[in-house]
Formats: sequence, C-alpha cells, structure tokens
Amino acid sequence: MTIEKALVVGTGLIGTSAALSLREKGVAVHLSDIDAQAVRVARELGAGREWTGEEVDLAVIAVPPQLVGERLAELQKRGAARAYTDVASVKVDPIADAERLGCDMTSYVPGHPLAGRERSGPAAARAGLFAGRPWALCPGPGTGAEALRLTRGLVALCGAEAVTVGAAEHDSAVALVSHAPHVAASAVAASLASGDDVALSLAGQGLRDVTRIAAGNPLLWRRILSGNAVPVAAVLDRIAADLAAAATALRAGDLDDLTELLRRGVDGHGRIPAIG
Amino acid sequence: MTIEKALVVGTGLIGTSAALSLREKGVAVHLSDIDAQAVRVARELGAGREWTGEEVDLAVIAVPPQLVGERLAELQKRGAARAYTDVASVKVDPIADAERLGCDMTSYVPGHPLAGRERSGPAAARAGLFAGRPWALCPGPGTGAEALRLTRGLVALCGAEAVTVGAAEHDSAVALVSHAPHVAASAVAASLASGDDVALSLAGQGLRDVTRIAAGNPLLWRRILSGNAVPVAAVLDRIAADLAAAATALRAGDLDDLTELLRRGVDGHGRIPAIG
Repeated sequence: MTIEKALVVGTGLIGTSAALSLREKGVAVHLSDIDAQAVRVARELGAGREWTGEEVDLAVIAVPPQLVGERLAELQKRGAARAYTDVASVKVDPIADAERLGCDMTSYVPGHPLAGRERSGPAAARAGLFAGRPWALCPGPGTGAEALRLTRGLVALCGAEAVTVGAAEHDSAVALVSHAPHVAASAVAASLASGDDVALSLAGQGLRDVTRIAAGNPLLWRRILSGNAVPVAAVLDRIAADLAAAATALRAGDLDDLTELLRRGVDGHGRIPAIG
Repeated sequence: MTIEKALVVGTGLIGTSAALSLREKGVAVHLSDIDAQAVRVARELGAGREWTGEEVDLAVIAVPPQLVGERLAELQKRGAARAYTDVASVKVDPIADAERLGCDMTSYVPGHPLAGRERSGPAAARAGLFAGRPWALCPGPGTGAEALRLTRGLVALCGAEAVTVGAAEHDSAVALVSHAPHVAASAVAASLASGDDVALSLAGQGLRDVTRIAAGNPLLWRRILSGNAVPVAAVLDRIAADLAAAATALRAGDLDDLTELLRRGVDGHGRIPAIG
C-alpha cells in the first residue's frame, strides 16, 4: 500500500517542499492553508491542487507546533485521511495536545524532518529540501502499522532518512543539535551590533558560518523555542557558563581551562556525522 | 619599486600560503622556519627555496604573535630585508614588543590577513587562501612610505584587499568578528558531548556551520586568545549574559526579550558584508 493521494495542511516552507517532493514522484497532492495566498503560491509552484475535502492516504500537518493537535483533531473528525503525520520541530507537546483532544493515536505518526532554510514561506520551498536529511519519527506504543508504513513512505519519497526516536529523547536532542545552537548563533550575531563598519569589514567566512542560522525568522523561532523551553534552557545554561568562565580565565591570564574547552569543542565537532 | 625577492619566516599555513601566492606571481621566495621539516614540506609544495641569508625586498614574519617582536628584531639586526611585515592575528602586543626591543619601526608594517583554515601547517597551504579576503594593515605614525608600499604590494600579489586600521581598533574588531565567535562555536560544539549518537544523528547543516571553526587547533587558538584577552573577554561576557538571560526567559515562559535577541541576531547577521 503506497501513497497515491496526499494532503498537505500548511503550505509554508516545509509543507510546500514536501508537496513538491511528492508531486515529483507522481503522488496526487492536495493543499490547504488558512492563508489563501500561501496556497495560491504553492499551487503556482506546482505543489498540487487546492483541497476540497476528498479523503487521502496520508495527511501531512505542516503547521506551527502549537496548532498540530488541534489540526489533527479537526482532520480526523472529517475523516480526511487514513493516516496522519506532522512536521513540527518539537514532539512532546503536540503529542500531549493530540491525546488531550482525544485524537486517534493509532493513525498518527509524529514526525520532524531535520531540514530548513533561512527563508520561510512557500516561495522558498524546493523539492530537494529533504534529500539525504534525517527525518525523525516518534511512533508511540499505540501507533498502527499502516500509519507507520505510510509515513515511512512519505520520508522515502522525500529522499530523507527515517530516524526512530522517543518524543522526549527527540526534544532533548533537537534542543542540543538545533535549538540551543540557533540561540547561540543569534547571540554571536547580536554582539556585532557593537562593531563599526571597519570591524565588520574584517569578518571572514568563519563568522558567516557561525551566524548563518541567526538569519532565521524570529517569530517562527520564538514558537519553536517556546515549545521546547526546558531542554533548550538546560543546554543554553551550559554554554553560557562555559563562555562566562572563558571570559574570567582570559582576564586572569589562566588559559588551561579555556584550552580544555577548545579541545572539548574539537571533540564535539568531530561527533557530528558527515552528510549522508 | 616592486617585490622581486621575499623572505617568509615561519612556513605554517599562512606563511606557506603567502609564499605560494608570491611564487605564482614570479617572486623569488626564500623560506625559513625553526622546524626543518616544515620548511621541507613548504619547499616540496613549490613555495620557494631555503633562505641562506641573502637580503630580500620584503620579509613576511609568519610566526605566533608572541614571537613576532623577537623575530623582527633578529631579522633587522641581520639586515635581512628592506621592509618587514607580520601576519599575526593580534597587533597591539606584537607592536609593543617590537618597540620594547628597539626595532626600527619605519621599515615595519604590522599586518593581518583575515584568512585561515581549520587545518594548520604547510601541507594545508594554498595559493588562493587570501583571494578576495580582507588583509588588515596597521601602520603607525613612524611607518615609512616604502615599507607601506612593499607591504601593500604583498597584499595585492596575494589577491587580498588591504584594510587600514589602528592596532587597538584592529584587536577589538577581531575579538568581535573572529576570536569571540571562535570561543562561542567551541562552547556549542563542546555541549554536544552530552548527546548520544541518536541525538547527533539529527544534526543538520546549521549545526555543522555553527561549529565548523571549533575544529581549529586548540593550542594555536590558545595563543591567539591569550594575545587578545581583554577585548575577547568583553565580547564573551555579553554573549554569555544574553544566553543566560535566554535560558531564564525560556524557563519563565516570558519570550519577549528572547524574541528581541533573535531580532538583534538577524540585524547583526545582516551587517556582515558579503564576500567581495
């Protein structure tokens, strides 16, 4: 049983990119968004046609984390699809919302493709966005086999690599590898406000790389961070403490601990897997 | 008056890359390093021939910041060149060392090419390393016109863009755009030690970019940071305070200030000039 018809709810960057990937593989894609303009842009990009209520095999819920549970409940009530997944960057809260709203958890597979761009919205979408990227899936004890099969089918059609992980473990992991690094990059970029143009003219590729993700949409990131607040705060506290200790050590002229931090940085960097 | 003969003292990454750039433009390059093996590697890469004491037009001192003044004094005593420059990543301390050691400040132009790689040593060198990159020059009130002309000639032959800036202003600038970001990247990379392999498998290009420079040689960076300690500490304190405040805000669920930090990050990132 493969995906012949899909519904993408939320035609932003991720939803529209998934729709384009599915279209490339010949899947019939229906599109829905509360913003009619976003659907129009996605449609014009060839991402699919507007949804008019027909039942599909898989519904991909690509809305902000805080709205996933609500949207899932509505779609299940309409019998919109045989299976449902979402793409929100946090998983514990959306799953708790879905349970609280009485959603059918057998047909829902929480998901999160680890892909993105600094730009948001459907105009930034592209079919290849997920190629070779990890795509976390967080099935629970009640998840049905067919829903998992269909969602794995979506991941494969998008060219991504499925990584199965518990929801809480997922949220701690993305706090570490994505959310806290985003805030750290923002803080480095924010510090540049104190520099004059000559200082900035000395910037090199290193600074560009460190701060690249800081260009992301602040309101989008506010939502992501608020949905994963405690795990992100734990990582930020550690980074802040290391940086404050580094400043103290530099002023004191005692650089052994700072050198140790640099060594730990080399080790940590070495643990990041190469792109698959 | 152009550079016909040059001497590169210190055949590490930067010195050997400068030598290779000069060789490409037909300059006769002589090489010197206390490490005979480093000279041999540079020579085998075509960076020039071993220096046997002949006088050159320009000597490029590419040794660690703490050794620049001493090396300059030795070379001037031998009458090794008509003009001298260095490539150390800090400028206030090497200039103070040179003055203290009684160097001739008319023939010396402090310099710093803003280029590098994560790998160090002559084997990592390449002629194109400086192409399009800024190259800071910090002439003082006593700097002679010919020394400045020869050093600008070096910058041009390496394909870089000369940026004239005061030494103290230079050191604050590189603390902001290079040294503090390096420590911040190291702290983010070091935080990954707490993650398991599944967490790391969810890493994306964003994390790779943020932490790329953290792969740099810890001992090399220890020397760079210790030579610019107070300006770097000032920037690190600001970044640490922003990150600690972000953690507190996340735990309190009050995200307005954090959103403001993200906005400042977008602005700061936007101030970094595109690669010329």
